[in-house]
Amino acid sequence: MREALVSLDRTLPALADQLTNALRDAISQGRLAPGTRLPSTRALAADLALSRGVVVDAYEQLVAEGHLVSRRGSGTVVAPLIRDLLSRRADDTPEPLPDQRPVLLRPGVPDLGMFPRGVWGRAYGKVLTGMRDGELDYGTPTGAGRLRVELAGYLGRVRAARVDASGIVVTTGAAQGFALLAGALRDAGASTVGFEEPGSYGLRGHMEGHHVRLVPVPVDADGLDVAALDRAGVPAVIVTPAHQFPTGVVLAPARRAALVEWARRTGGLIIEDDYDAEFRYDRDPVGCVQGLAPDAVAYIGSVSKALAPALRLGWLAVPDKWRAAVAARKEWADLGGPVLEQLAFAELLASGGYDRHLRRARLEHRRRRDALVAALRRHLPGLRISGVAAGLHLVVELPAGVDDEALAERALAAGLGLLPLSRMRLAGGGPPGLVLGYAANPPGELESAVQTLASSYGAIHPAR
Amino acid sequence: MREALVSLDRTLPALADQLTNALRDAISQGRLAPGTRLPSTRALAADLALSRGVVVDAYEQLVAEGHLVSRRGSGTVVAPLIRDLLSRRADDTPEPLPDQRPVLLRPGVPDLGMFPRGVWGRAYGKVLTGMRDGELDYGTPTGAGRLRVELAGYLGRVRAARVDASGIVVTTGAAQGFALLAGALRDAGASTVGFEEPGSYGLRGHMEGHHVRLVPVPVDADGLDVAALDRAGVPAVIVTPAHQFPTGVVLAPARRAALVEWARRTGGLIIEDDYDAEFRYDRDPVGCVQGLAPDAVAYIGSVSKALAPALRLGWLAVPDKWRAAVAARKEWADLGGPVLEQLAFAELLASGGYDRHLRRARLEHRRRRDALVAALRRHLPGLRISGVAAGLHLVVELPAGVDDEALAERALAAGLGLLPLSRMRLAGGGPPGLVLGYAANPPGELESAVQTLASSYGAIHPAR
Repeated sequence: MREALVSLDRTLPALADQLTNALRDAISQGRLAPGTRLPSTRALAADLALSRGVVVDAYEQLVAEGHLVSRRGSGTVVAPLIRDLLSRRADDTPEPLPDQRPVLLRPGVPDLGMFPRGVWGRAYGKVLTGMRDGELDYGTPTGAGRLRVELAGYLGRVRAARVDASGIVVTTGAAQGFALLAGALRDAGASTVGFEEPGSYGLRGHMEGHHVRLVPVPVDADGLDVAALDRAGVPAVIVTPAHQFPTGVVLAPARRAALVEWARRTGGLIIEDDYDAEFRYDRDPVGCVQGLAPDAVAYIGSVSKALAPALRLGWLAVPDKWRAAVAARKEWADLGGPVLEQLAFAELLASGGYDRHLRRARLEHRRRRDALVAALRRHLPGLRISGVAAGLHLVVELPAGVDDEALAERALAAGLGLLPLSRMRLAGGGPPGLVLGYAANPPGELESAVQTLASSYGAIHPAR
Repeated sequence: MREALVSLDRTLPALADQLTNALRDAISQGRLAPGTRLPSTRALAADLALSRGVVVDAYEQLVAEGHLVSRRGSGTVVAPLIRDLLSRRADDTPEPLPDQRPVLLRPGVPDLGMFPRGVWGRAYGKVLTGMRDGELDYGTPTGAGRLRVELAGYLGRVRAARVDASGIVVTTGAAQGFALLAGALRDAGASTVGFEEPGSYGLRGHMEGHHVRLVPVPVDADGLDVAALDRAGVPAVIVTPAHQFPTGVVLAPARRAALVEWARRTGGLIIEDDYDAEFRYDRDPVGCVQGLAPDAVAYIGSVSKALAPALRLGWLAVPDKWRAAVAARKEWADLGGPVLEQLAFAELLASGGYDRHLRRARLEHRRRRDALVAALRRHLPGLRISGVAAGLHLVVELPAGVDDEALAERALAAGLGLLPLSRMRLAGGGPPGLVLGYAANPPGELESAVQTLASSYGAIHPAR
């Protein structure tokens, strides 16, 4: 606490009073916030070159006045205010985003209890003890080399991607990958981007935040309608070929070929959001489109669905011609992301720990999907479930005329975080439905959540 | 490896041959990169629902062909190519930025060997075992609440800042703080920003990357010339009041008052870069300007100088009227930074571990500064050392006419990372000098570095 906060005039007497007054002012003016832990009397005395008794006197006076609280074993802290006690919770607890409060059936989140804390902690510890001092410096803005090498191998092996380490940008989650691309596209004069209809509600808001105008391109049973994309005349398009969000369809082989043909003919950029491709339960997943056309595809992935969103760890691989622009944007964004967790993830990839975790998660997700499907067939037998057995969510189609927004609102009040399909449409229209996440809840919870959903549905749609 | 990479037709015989061919194709087409570790035969057999013998046969065939390498204890990996052996190093090692290779006397880096690995590892481990599952979800984009509360207390206590937890944005280093402000300013129609002359060369490039036009504002012995700032007519200015970079002067009290007056009169934004304010060796550091005028100052700090740049952990506190814009920009940038290390740093602040580390680092830095000053007086006695005893660097003034760029170039060839003062000037001109960092090198290294510098100087300036 060698600070301007405590400015003592050593030519004057009564240093204890001066210190007391300085601390009291700092507390009452809010510069020392309630809850702040003060240094020990010994440490503060040493820092200010005072005798320890002077500091003890000052602390005791302020405790007597109620400005400080002295707690056995936890030192001296600034006393809380009533106002603060009331308002603190909001800051003390990470506030969930408004639509994230109810976790039951909420799409897009994995089971956070499945995060392999022990494995992750050991990998992090190994990095921390083994890394060279030089690796604690500013690094390459595009990410730690060791992680980029491991990712290139992993994406080739598991997603049939064709990327090399020098072409990968490690990002702060997929969100930053989209941000970097939005900026690079805008710098290149592109202000519109094709967007799947229906498509991700969250991603739509994110892209619009970057002043990108999204043009809806319809999705049917074969995935994105490439002929419609062509007519839209956009310079880029965001697609989810392996498992379309939210419909769950897979981009058909002919459509994959047509999409690549579109990109090569028009010079358009395919932005492949490979958001949950680690999870396919009925057969081998299709490889990513990037592997077919590395010259035309910007590939985006992250650990958010496979490990935890809070790690904020993702990657972006772009065609050669976009590399310089995207790397510069990453440098300007933050000079690169945190290196230690990048190296910990590299360790997880190299040791096979990530593969083992995914294998376990896949088995568990499949069990949960089966449980949700069974519960839906039991309690809502008339409704069709669409999409392939993959990912962390499924879609239930509702009869025409059912107001899925109203149903979702009623379900929300009952504690269910499912989302209405109509909210996933930019242009509106189309059949109603519900997007249900199952990854975060064990079978028993899914069963009772579906019972709750069935009564919400019965209430707004008694004709059923 | 449940992947498109290995697509088997189970209606056909010779599954081992199919598997061998599929793997061989993947290797020769580069989808399986050299060095990639394959799953164990047992794991792959389980994933593909094959008997283990089939996988063993396939691996053995590919080892015989030279496509795979089998290593005792480390499994089966794709064989390296000669080309790859040559090019790998570049990816395997985090490449230093071009001007960062020589560490001797390089300004702006702490002693990375001083990073408290044990303390940090224990804090991280405590977070990892103690955090709630819900904290692994997407969190508040502006940062973990627990860290913001601790930071508000710390900045009030140590920097006399007046910030509350809800007004802090946790950033990916100070670099992201500047990026968010640059974006928010541009959105508000501001495209020019005042910049100290001389000022940080690195920050200048960073801001220009964000399409901000920097307007030089001279710095004299009292710090930023506020009258000149007023004449420049800019809507914002970046300043380093506690320890100007690079000159090392402190913004004089009258100038602090004038700067705040400028901001209030013109509505201008003061961007306070408090980059190394933890380190002052001769007296208590002056408090930050933000504490005088929270309504007019955007305050930026980070752990890069106090712990390690690789953590990429910083903070930004802005006046109320800028809060919404900056929070939105942070959300669009990346939906928030990695939470676990944020919580680990909160733990370090709460436990007093950060204070203890700073106290140790301060003592050591002072010792190194003294050693550098002594060495300069010994080996380059004619040169004046400017700036207060603070921070991680000092400036040596050179006689008029000495080409400091040429001297820095010659010193670089001799392994010294010092920077020429003239490079820190946007408009050019001004007396020549050298910016020398001392924090990263122990006294013995500083002594020999100054000997090297003295001979470089003698070579270009034999008149001395």
